Amino acid sequence: MLPTQPVPVSALAQRLACEFRGDASHLIDSVGSVTHATRSQITFVVDQRRANEILASDAGAVIVRAEDAGLITDRPVLIHDDPYYAYALLAQYFSPRPRARASVHASAVVEPSASVDPSAEIGPLVYIAPDAKIAAGVRIHAGVRIGRGSSVGADTEIFPNVVLYHGCQVGERCVLHAGVVLGADGFGYAPHKGQWTKIPQTGGVIIGNDVEIGANTTIDRGALDDTEIGDGVKLDNQIQIGHNCKIGAHTAIAGCVGIAGSTRIGKHCMIGGAAMLAGHFDICDNVVISAGTLIASDIKKPGRYTGVFPTVEHSLWRKMAVKIRKLSS
Amino acid sequence: MLPTQPVPVSALAQRLACEFRGDASHLIDSVGSVTHATRSQITFVVDQRRANEILASDAGAVIVRAEDAGLITDRPVLIHDDPYYAYALLAQYFSPRPRARASVHASAVVEPSASVDPSAEIGPLVYIAPDAKIAAGVRIHAGVRIGRGSSVGADTEIFPNVVLYHGCQVGERCVLHAGVVLGADGFGYAPHKGQWTKIPQTGGVIIGNDVEIGANTTIDRGALDDTEIGDGVKLDNQIQIGHNCKIGAHTAIAGCVGIAGSTRIGKHCMIGGAAMLAGHFDICDNVVISAGTLIASDIKKPGRYTGVFPTVEHSLWRKMAVKIRKLSS
Amino acid sequence: MLPTQPVPVSALAQRLACEFRGDASHLIDSVGSVTHATRSQITFVVDQRRANEILASDAGAVIVRAEDAGLITDRPVLIHDDPYYAYALLAQYFSPRPRARASVHASAVVEPSASVDPSAEIGPLVYIAPDAKIAAGVRIHAGVRIGRGSSVGADTEIFPNVVLYHGCQVGERCVLHAGVVLGADGFGYAPHKGQWTKIPQTGGVIIGNDVEIGANTTIDRGALDDTEIGDGVKLDNQIQIGHNCKIGAHTAIAGCVGIAGSTRIGKHCMIGGAAMLAGHFDICDNVVISAGTLIASDIKKPGRYTGVFPTVEHSLWRKMAVKIRKLSS
Repeated sequence: MLPTQPVPVSALAQRLACEFRGDASHLIDSVGSVTHATRSQITFVVDQRRANEILASDAGAVIVRAEDAGLITDRPVLIHDDPYYAYALLAQYFSPRPRARASVHASAVVEPSASVDPSAEIGPLVYIAPDAKIAAGVRIHAGVRIGRGSSVGADTEIFPNVVLYHGCQVGERCVLHAGVVLGADGFGYAPHKGQWTKIPQTGGVIIGNDVEIGANTTIDRGALDDTEIGDGVKLDNQIQIGHNCKIGAHTAIAGCVGIAGSTRIGKHCMIGGAAMLAGHFDICDNVVISAGTLIASDIKKPGRYTGVFPTVEHSLWRKMAVKIRKLSS
Repeated sequence: MLPTQPVPVSALAQRLACEFRGDASHLIDSVGSVTHATRSQITFVVDQRRANEILASDAGAVIVRAEDAGLITDRPVLIHDDPYYAYALLAQYFSPRPRARASVHASAVVEPSASVDPSAEIGPLVYIAPDAKIAAGVRIHAGVRIGRGSSVGADTEIFPNVVLYHGCQVGERCVLHAGVVLGADGFGYAPHKGQWTKIPQTGGVIIGNDVEIGANTTIDRGALDDTEIGDGVKLDNQIQIGHNCKIGAHTAIAGCVGIAGSTRIGKHCMIGGAAMLAGHFDICDNVVISAGTLIASDIKKPGRYTGVFPTVEHSLWRKMAVKIRKLSS
Repeated sequence: MLPTQPVPVSALAQRLACEFRGDASHLIDSVGSVTHATRSQITFVVDQRRANEILASDAGAVIVRAEDAGLITDRPVLIHDDPYYAYALLAQYFSPRPRARASVHASAVVEPSASVDPSAEIGPLVYIAPDAKIAAGVRIHAGVRIGRGSSVGADTEIFPNVVLYHGCQVGERCVLHAGVVLGADGFGYAPHKGQWTKIPQTGGVIIGNDVEIGANTTIDRGALDDTEIGDGVKLDNQIQIGHNCKIGAHTAIAGCVGIAGSTRIGKHCMIGGAAMLAGHFDICDNVVISAGTLIASDIKKPGRYTGVFPTVEHSLWRKMAVKIRKLSS
């Protein structure tokens, strides 16, 4: 947000603890994409085939693997084992998250029994219920609602209009985007004579550290036990996570995914957009689920799983559909 | 939320009007799951095969069917035709919903022409528009917006940041979870020379009694007539219901389902997560639609309907996809 | 919303600049559907087969194509090349959008450096951040949050609890429905040793003129460049649009669609409900994508594309699924 001072390439190399070649004094003020980077920007390349694009670009400097360094000799290069990761670190350096400005906005409503660290920032028109706990360095933007007895860990940022029900715990350094709802009742009813009798949902929601949750994503509270999201999990927008799910650390889930209740997902999984996981199944560590795929059984072996109908022109699809219907006879 | 007094097993049996066996005076203070229930908790079993788990558990008492009562002789049993339903009733008894505390928070904005029953609870930073009507015992949490002329029936609870547009009617004893939007415009446009001309959406939304609506679910207002949700309908999170839909009483719909405009769904239907119903179709009573299934025609016969591609390891899926594409030739 | 004065059929024909037949003085006060229209309502017919329904209806007048005018002789007809479009124009005439009442509600929080046109309407409990710009005739409903430096063009209406992050631009005459989130961070992380390192999202969101965005739809800000929605685009509810997408003018997208990052969609496309577009692909102009279809490659030829498994009774589906699984062998 704030303009950052330009720094010489050599200082960036020092920051990344990596080697560099070329003009040490060339000044860089931000990161850029391969195709749009300007003279004062640094970009990265991980694919040798894109080296020509770099040469045709205005990029002021490039992060490359050692084996690709020889391809780019007309401008400074930083040599790093993992150029995309190094690029991410520099992007964070040039665009740091704003820190909390210790303050409670005059229009916020904070119940007397809530505990708010003096270093936290409570924005306009926020409501913080009794017995809630807001730790040091937390930023809470306009219109957020923190429920009774819920807690927010240090340095977490909560964007506008997020809702935490009662009894939710959010870890440290998390980011919750606008419209997120944590702790709504799980979908639990006992059928009886054609009607549904509600099962009270008395568990909570526990979010680990370094978790990011995308806009309008919902995570239900547990029925009896808690719903748990592990450390370092990254959730995109519009995801629904049912009651009692457990998501393992460092798993990443793309937008529009639905996860029915009591699903356990391992660590280091990747779930593609709009995938749907029916409930009460276990997914082991290191599983990749393709976009649009429905999972309705346990997955016990790491690997990638897919189940989507191939997309074709509609007239061809009609022919395919007729033949597939015949498979049931 | 509040700790409940422990009660003897005999009192629970009396409450359920059912038989019991074993120590009448054993004290119970809450419900628990088969595997985690403690000495002071009651659980239930509907599957004979799980009786062994009960015997290995600490559960203080168990609700069982008459035919299973003989399997559990080491602790008190309540004998009920429908153990899961009986369990739900006891769970409600031990975790009652908090009642409205008659009050209007000082930070709420209530227009003078709105009518708010004195027994209702209006939370912080709520806005209630002109001519809205809030009935007795209603609880409205922080940040809710009630539109012009909308009405909320007795004992309904509305969680934070819900939005009701103008002209929406919500019945009695409903629960609307955070982020629900009722009465946004339906998606109606007339195409003309490559552009879209909006059709004003002048109908309303009518929600019956005892309806529960999950977090961030949206229900559009009708184009001319109303969108109608029948009594006892249960909607999970992140559902989209288009304009002029009619959902029959006691139908349950899981998360992430999309229902396009003018769809009529019968009574006592169950729709699995992420199913999609294309618009202008009729689904009769007692239909079950599997998760992830697309419905694009009327369903006139009760039963279960499915249409999902089987999920397999990605390398196998590639082979299947190639063969399916060939079906179009 | 407000009752409109009845007007003679001849005045409506004059307004549409079209021919009419029948009683010029018959009074019309609103539009209605073919089956429910009353004596004082006008409806339309585009399908000759529905002419009999008109004759059996109470509709006071009918908009028809010239070739169908002879079928309806018992009441006034307006003759128009595009009856549905003409109907939309009359519906807008009878139900005009309320105009902004120049005002800032006392409970709104508007930062001093924000610029709000005196003709704009700022509702209760709204927050407008520093350096935001609100143009003439804008209506902002209760609980909306406008981020730092964001701008809203003339005559745009923003319904309750919408969130604009910093640096979002919304054009003129747009409608943003409740719960919309513009400008949350895109889903961008660099993987490194089993963990995810965030790539700061420093682009913005640019929304053209005459765009409508449905309830709870989310549009992420760009990673470096902007996410762009073209003029006249219509988005239904619960849509997710990832970072750096570009949506061409006058494209319409139905509810629950997910569009992964860096997807480019052409002009005049139509995307059916719950379709999913995997990222980094280009869809050309004039493409129709069927509901529930997954797109995972470029589309370079206009036309309709489909990829959904045919839905059948569950027992038949089981047989089909077994045979399809065999295709992988």
